[in-house]
Amino acid sequence: MSPLELIAGGAEAGTLYGIGVGPGDVRYLTLRAAGLIRSVDVLACFAKEGRESCARSVAAPLIEPGREELTLYYPVTTEAPVEDAAYTSPMRDFYEASAERLAALLRAGRSVGLMGEGDPFFYGSFMHMWRRLERDFPVEIVPGVIGISGCAAKANAPLTWGDDVLTVLPGTLDEATLARRLADTDAAAIMKVGRNLAKVRRAVAQAGLLDRAIYVERGTMPGERVAPLADVDAAKAPYFSMILIPGNGRRI
Amino acid sequence: MSPLELIAGGAEAGTLYGIGVGPGDVRYLTLRAAGLIRSVDVLACFAKEGRESCARSVAAPLIEPGREELTLYYPVTTEAPVEDAAYTSPMRDFYEASAERLAALLRAGRSVGLMGEGDPFFYGSFMHMWRRLERDFPVEIVPGVIGISGCAAKANAPLTWGDDVLTVLPGTLDEATLARRLADTDAAAIMKVGRNLAKVRRAVAQAGLLDRAIYVERGTMPGERVAPLADVDAAKAPYFSMILIPGNGRRI
Ligand SMILES: C[S@@+](CC[C@H](N)C(=O)[O-])C[C@H]1O[C@@H](n2cnc3c(N)ncnc32)[C@H](O)[C@@H]1O
Ligand SMILES: C[S@@+](CC[C@H](N)C(=O)[O-])C[C@H]1O[C@@H](n2cnc3c(N)ncnc32)[C@H](O)[C@@H]1O
Repeated sequence: MSPLELIAGGAEAGTLYGIGVGPGDVRYLTLRAAGLIRSVDVLACFAKEGRESCARSVAAPLIEPGREELTLYYPVTTEAPVEDAAYTSPMRDFYEASAERLAALLRAGRSVGLMGEGDPFFYGSFMHMWRRLERDFPVEIVPGVIGISGCAAKANAPLTWGDDVLTVLPGTLDEATLARRLADTDAAAIMKVGRNLAKVRRAVAQAGLLDRAIYVERGTMPGERVAPLADVDAAKAPYFSMILIPGNGRRI
Repeated sequence: MSPLELIAGGAEAGTLYGIGVGPGDVRYLTLRAAGLIRSVDVLACFAKEGRESCARSVAAPLIEPGREELTLYYPVTTEAPVEDAAYTSPMRDFYEASAERLAALLRAGRSVGLMGEGDPFFYGSFMHMWRRLERDFPVEIVPGVIGISGCAAKANAPLTWGDDVLTVLPGTLDEATLARRLADTDAAAIMKVGRNLAKVRRAVAQAGLLDRAIYVERGTMPGERVAPLADVDAAKAPYFSMILIPGNGRRI
């Protein structure tokens, strides 16, 4: 079978596709994602008004001019304190309205591909559409390469060996919780570093892991940066940044 | 840019590629993986003699007849007790000999693609070659979709929401450790279930999570099975099986 047949696409009418576009390099899209991106009636993504670009920029080399697109602009940053009603309430309204826009397209029999970074079911915003639409419309999840895998590859750092336990932590947790969990795992990945960088760095140090921690910014994307966390002393990091603590497990 | 150009490959002479082939469905290979599989001089994989097939079967639809291939057969099952010298010693000899075979090819200027399930740096056997060869030869890691992402997609189960903590556990851990860690996380994935199924099931129950646990066997592969763990009472499971405990995090 030629890869061309595999990427021929074949989007079905009235179906919603949650398309993971991987960590950043367009070559890390799956064949299924590439096929659907080229065949859905409407190509959609979430984006932050005037800030970071959305998953669309990852897939851009595959998007032909003239495709019908729908960009759903977030009302506020997803990095705001999430317990805050000032964050939750406009976000909920936004997700409700977005789901309604997608539903209208699906009801009209159109196929819609909603692209997201990494994997849709791994901390993905697609999930907020999934839970509002999956009962009423056919939905297909297209798994993607998670950011963690792209970052580990670029850091040249095998993440988990043998019987290692891996803990994935959002940098939004409080310092004591981060430090406690880091001290009780073999390997870790800390996501959502952004404005939490200084706190996360303190927690890593407290857990005695500063010499093993690797900072990866924009992994597999233009402007990628890999550095020992010990060498990073900025107060904040960009949205696409994470910290990896590779496991030390069984090396046969 | 057409996907055809992206999968054109372009393997470099004397380079080792660690190619993640994803969870099982050939459509979940990345464009980069597909390109390299069609362009490396030698296509290699690990396999268990007379048992489960290797990553090759996932990529098979992309492999043209007449390609030069190298299958490295494991001497023993990777599910044997790993503390046992009866396991470690032949495995170490096997990895040494395998690395030497790959090195000979690389020294002769040939490009070699070693395929592995999922992502190469996520509990992958490729890592045993990486650590023996990466100092002497150019190595490129091609990240892949992890089995967890494929299984979550097929279980229709978003894995992690908002600020969920995710713990990835090997089913080889002892029951008390599994239960303790499961009780102290928001979401979990338990790999290497196989002959550990009964023990893992008891640990999940002890952590009070039996009603949320999903069993996925051969996710995205032929013969796939998804079931509530509560309904699975076999003593053992096949090699490709895992248990997912999706997070309950913030749903806006
Ligand atoms: C809301 S989560 C989405 C994760 C995504 N669905 C995935 O599967 O990787 C966003 C976080 O992922 C991490 N991330 C994703 N891709 C990354 C990349 N290429 N480089 C660095 N960090 C990345 C960052 O920590 C970022 O804050
Ligand atoms: C040695 S680990 C390799 C993991 C792989 N490198 C990855 O990234 O997913 C093998 C374990 O992964 C899990 N696994 C991988 N792919 C799977 C699939 N398609 N269905 C079920 N389990 C899978 C099983 O638990 C299996 O025991």
